Amino acid sequence: MNERMTQAEAYLERCHKEIDQALDHFMSHSTTSERLRDTMRYSVLGGGKRVRPALCLAAAKAMGVNEKTALAPACALELIHAYSLVHDDLPAMDDDDLRRGRPTAHIAFDEASAILAGDALQSLAFSLLSEAPDLTDRQRVVMVSELARASGHEGMVGGQAIDLESVGQQLNVEQLETMHRHKTGALIEASVRLGALTAENVTERQLSDLSDYASALGLAFQVQDDLLDIEGDTQTIGKRQGSDAAKEKPTYPALLGIDGARQHLTRLLNDALNAIEGFGSEADTLRAMADYVVARSH
Amino acid sequence: MNERMTQAEAYLERCHKEIDQALDHFMSHSTTSERLRDTMRYSVLGGGKRVRPALCLAAAKAMGVNEKTALAPACALELIHAYSLVHDDLPAMDDDDLRRGRPTAHIAFDEASAILAGDALQSLAFSLLSEAPDLTDRQRVVMVSELARASGHEGMVGGQAIDLESVGQQLNVEQLETMHRHKTGALIEASVRLGALTAENVTERQLSDLSDYASALGLAFQVQDDLLDIEGDTQTIGKRQGSDAAKEKPTYPALLGIDGARQHLTRLLNDALNAIEGFGSEADTLRAMADYVVARSH
Repeated sequence: MNERMTQAEAYLERCHKEIDQALDHFMSHSTTSERLRDTMRYSVLGGGKRVRPALCLAAAKAMGVNEKTALAPACALELIHAYSLVHDDLPAMDDDDLRRGRPTAHIAFDEASAILAGDALQSLAFSLLSEAPDLTDRQRVVMVSELARASGHEGMVGGQAIDLESVGQQLNVEQLETMHRHKTGALIEASVRLGALTAENVTERQLSDLSDYASALGLAFQVQDDLLDIEGDTQTIGKRQGSDAAKEKPTYPALLGIDGARQHLTRLLNDALNAIEGFGSEADTLRAMADYVVARSH
Repeated sequence: MNERMTQAEAYLERCHKEIDQALDHFMSHSTTSERLRDTMRYSVLGGGKRVRPALCLAAAKAMGVNEKTALAPACALELIHAYSLVHDDLPAMDDDDLRRGRPTAHIAFDEASAILAGDALQSLAFSLLSEAPDLTDRQRVVMVSELARASGHEGMVGGQAIDLESVGQQLNVEQLETMHRHKTGALIEASVRLGALTAENVTERQLSDLSDYASALGLAFQVQDDLLDIEGDTQTIGKRQGSDAAKEKPTYPALLGIDGARQHLTRLLNDALNAIEGFGSEADTLRAMADYVVARSH
């Protein structure tokens, strides 16, 4: 496990550089509003672990495809993720002033700029995807369709709506899982699927196995997030420690206890690894990523 | 002109029904959050003239394509337009409480729901477009690319950013035009282009002529909007009369005088009609729409 963990961290670091270079390039446009461009760049380039793009690249690798082919889809996924954070942090939503160790976009700039930057980042994601090089039009169309569904009311935004409605409510584990499957799970699943779809010959069975992997991984990611919110400190996790509890947000440790949450995390890790048993060593990066998600400290 | 005006109004009415039926269908999804779905439906189905979808259908018609082929792209355009209105009305943006004669979305629901509904409507637009029936994958990809660029920082959102920055500023006509070309012009141009792109054999020349038509029409639409803001009454225009002036927003009448603005409107109408001179009677609906935009009272 330790070796795979180091492997994952090295992989993430390498991806981080490649992705940030590409994102920087896609957002270095001259523009009519400098403030809009600055807010967009601040929101995307400031930090973050780039887990979604890394999963996308790793899934392409698992299918034997050159990672470069997955670069534009990987950037599109990060842009969607970044826009969702900017909007979630708004005063009318989660009202957070700290993210990735820095002031949130609406604090560093202003609320209107944050709303507009989020909107523009979403458009840019679909722009990138529709113009992604080295793919067929069929692949581009399927990716746009999958990303749009994973982002919208059936996916991420739907999950954020449930999340807001459930503040102060007593949720059971099933309801909590439904919320997370939408809010973060849908985009993590899309990350792996878009990566796999860079292979024209990907089979339904492979897509389904990779979706199962991503689905378990997405939940594991969330359980670990909840545990870090209790156990981590503000400096390491980059947002206020204990902020979930302070907002009366339902969490896995609150429902299962800390030990119960840890056991759940281990089960999910095993589910993720079992789902991709059929893949050979080309999927080792995906395996390392699963270990990383469970063991990460921020 | 009167006959063409009647023709345009009849066309808009017919389009309105078809578009609303289709939008209703696309948004009748079962969902995890009823409040999100209700806010989305309220924001889209409540009213509005459906000018963008009508232009999209009319452009398809001008290319000899069955209007039904343009129905999904037309709906995608209206979803983008509707999301932009919901976000523009937010307290941190234009802070409007009345739209299309009804409370704005964040008043009828709440701010968080309005932000999320807007986000989900944008995703839904790209979802619809990527899955539009009766088109080739090439057509879908080109349309996603054009709509994404017209909506984002290079287009509509960029224009809204300039608009916010120019409140209380002295703009000249050129700067005002740049703002409008982005804020409303880009999407109106995309409406006509997406309609034309339903024809696989559309030529670069035809696209360019139709873009010129749409570009002039988009500006004309804005000049007439500014005039209505001064001359119309709140009940007819569905938002507070004089609200632009109250917010110190730059307008054509403020820069050119009312007569000057009317003359500018006539020039733009002629530009629009001249641009599509090369088309035969199949473009008569586009011509009627141009007359309508100039003569409309709301």
